Amino acid sequence: MDSKQMAVRDEVEFCRILIKTNALKFGVFKLTSGKLSPYYVDLRSIPSYPEAFKKIMGFYGVLVKEEVGLDNFDRISCVPTSGLLFAAVLAFQHSKPILYVRREAKTHGRERRIEGVLTPGDRVILVDDLITTGKSLVDVTQVVRGEGGIVTDAIVLLDREEGGRGNLERIGVKLHSFMRISEVANRLFNLGVIDESKYRDIIEQCIRG
Amino acid sequence: MDSKQMAVRDEVEFCRILIKTNALKFGVFKLTSGKLSPYYVDLRSIPSYPEAFKKIMGFYGVLVKEEVGLDNFDRISCVPTSGLLFAAVLAFQHSKPILYVRREAKTHGRERRIEGVLTPGDRVILVDDLITTGKSLVDVTQVVRGEGGIVTDAIVLLDREEGGRGNLERIGVKLHSFMRISEVANRLFNLGVIDESKYRDIIEQCIRG
Repeated sequence: MDSKQMAVRDEVEFCRILIKTNALKFGVFKLTSGKLSPYYVDLRSIPSYPEAFKKIMGFYGVLVKEEVGLDNFDRISCVPTSGLLFAAVLAFQHSKPILYVRREAKTHGRERRIEGVLTPGDRVILVDDLITTGKSLVDVTQVVRGEGGIVTDAIVLLDREEGGRGNLERIGVKLHSFMRISEVANRLFNLGVIDESKYRDIIEQCIRG
Repeated sequence: MDSKQMAVRDEVEFCRILIKTNALKFGVFKLTSGKLSPYYVDLRSIPSYPEAFKKIMGFYGVLVKEEVGLDNFDRISCVPTSGLLFAAVLAFQHSKPILYVRREAKTHGRERRIEGVLTPGDRVILVDDLITTGKSLVDVTQVVRGEGGIVTDAIVLLDREEGGRGNLERIGVKLHSFMRISEVANRLFNLGVIDESKYRDIIEQCIRG
């Protein structure tokens, strides 16, 4: 099997995991941004399936090793809470320090948005499960940079293609996604898992360009 | 080295990690409960030190294998966000499904407090980093039981001895802690790391009985 065949196999496997773990749902959903969506992706269930969790961590491993390079960053930063389980295992597997950025400052204890160690000059990669508009990843980038961290790369499993890639690019952060939602739609349609109407629901939600 | 000597070595190692990662601080701190404390423990920095993180996961492993038993539970549940990094790696290492209970229900997407899979009748162990009064662990127990889960055991690294053990016991949950804060104070005092006044600060904060 060459590397292209392996990539195809991994993508099919990822799509099967989305279905098996009930991560992809169709209906009318209100996103965090307030926007409506004809489908919903919730990767938070994957760690409830140990075999799927193991495979998913392999996909993250490919991104972090082949697209970023283990020597090209010092720390991993994640956003609570959905990406945290994946980022924790990724950091542990590759012996990389991990920190996370809280959504809001705590009102007790020490008032900080960063939990964990960050030294000015540290090269930090962002790890999350998925990206939609990229609002929370842009926010995390700003908080990490505000404390002197260098942020140039972000890793997610799934790009929902609703502007996130461009919003990160505008602030100098390159997005590495394991799959884009349009690729997932294509594979699922070709595998006969979803019909044409569901395929269109997904594709029409994507922002092009 | 017999098992008792190994336990002592692990406890000393844990105390050294608390100091090295700056997890234990002295001063005046306001806890989540609103109560004041002369010391503060924040284990959230440990995953920023890969070697310490590895050792800590070994300590969790001892608790989960020797005190609960890997065959005696089906799922791990944790509380966002401080215990999540540890629980994620523990679940991954032992191929156990993991779920978490949100502090509050989301206002978008599906309205649930449990993220992940839980089937009525599942035996669920709770994993957190530390326990103070046990309020959040009691809350998680009630949410998991409310969806049919069976909860009898909770695992934490550190028991701050401020009533948490008793509060869990009253609802039928046995607490397994790697160390109690009074044991930490004893070891640190004997190692010459803290003076008598700091030792007393810790001990006087503990609720006895």
